[in-house]
Amino acid sequence: LLGTRTVVDDRWLRLDAERLETGRGAILDPWYLQRSRAWACAVATVPDGRVVMVEQYRRGVDAWVLELPAGDIDAGEDPAVAAARELAEETGHRASAAPVALGAWFPEPAHSTARAHGFFVSAHADPVATSHDVGEDIVVRLLAPAEVEAAIDSGHLCHAAQIGFWYAARRRGLIGD
Amino acid sequence: LLGTRTVVDDRWLRLDAERLETGRGAILDPWYLQRSRAWACAVATVPDGRVVMVEQYRRGVDAWVLELPAGDIDAGEDPAVAAARELAEETGHRASAAPVALGAWFPEPAHSTARAHGFFVSAHADPVATSHDVGEDIVVRLLAPAEVEAAIDSGHLCHAAQIGFWYAARRRGLIGD
Repeated sequence: LLGTRTVVDDRWLRLDAERLETGRGAILDPWYLQRSRAWACAVATVPDGRVVMVEQYRRGVDAWVLELPAGDIDAGEDPAVAAARELAEETGHRASAAPVALGAWFPEPAHSTARAHGFFVSAHADPVATSHDVGEDIVVRLLAPAEVEAAIDSGHLCHAAQIGFWYAARRRGLIGD
Repeated sequence: LLGTRTVVDDRWLRLDAERLETGRGAILDPWYLQRSRAWACAVATVPDGRVVMVEQYRRGVDAWVLELPAGDIDAGEDPAVAAARELAEETGHRASAAPVALGAWFPEPAHSTARAHGFFVSAHADPVATSHDVGEDIVVRLLAPAEVEAAIDSGHLCHAAQIGFWYAARRRGLIGD
């Protein structure tokens, strides 16, 4: 790291333009790096086996898409706590057991420090009141596992990291058929 | 979309700050949106069943990490062609059959238009010469499938979208044990 120029620094984005020298002596300037908050998501099932999902407009996709309940981890917050909190806030479904860690991955390892934490969460069937942020417009969906996979195939569920966490939960036998 | 201000526009990054109004009337300003190129990656195996991987430093992780061969799709290029091209350029292993599409997902659906295309590729055992970009410093690794999954568990393979494509290939029975 030979130098850093901050391009954006507000409550939504911290973007640096770095001057880097590689191990082989090449100079990369500017190398854009986002210093981003970590977020957590929940692959959550209710007792009848259905998966708790949310539907919302996503600007990068420019479409209403299906996603796992997810959100930024607060400063000092445990990622597992954040996953359960976001699940409850976005869908009303509270965790009925401790979340099971599925991985802590990087959605954009070249240009962002953001880390995505995935958890499997067993949830209560009956929702309590939700608590959406201003600007959030979320529809809750309870889907059978086969419907989730159909949504992956159709592109309605297209969030790369979340699809990874879904498959990770499947592979560990945490999701039924 | 009520307005757009371009924050960065060079050959590496196009970043807009948008003024958005949600369906419920909330104003989001600035909403940062990256208009990013699509990229493609290859879950590639050679005839003995080993997986062709690359190891390189990633700035967002600040570590040497394991990844699938991957790279930006050129303008007008077919994503399957791009996956096979990047595989050959980065590792020297040429495709021996047409790539099999695994999905076209969004690594950052809220704030980036970038789309990640994953393919399974059967590759020749013997590599030809590689062709690395300036600034790339890549070590090729041939790993057994169990070693790839151990790398996911250890965090050495931590690229969220690529882990998703790996599991997608597994789930379709394209990877052996």
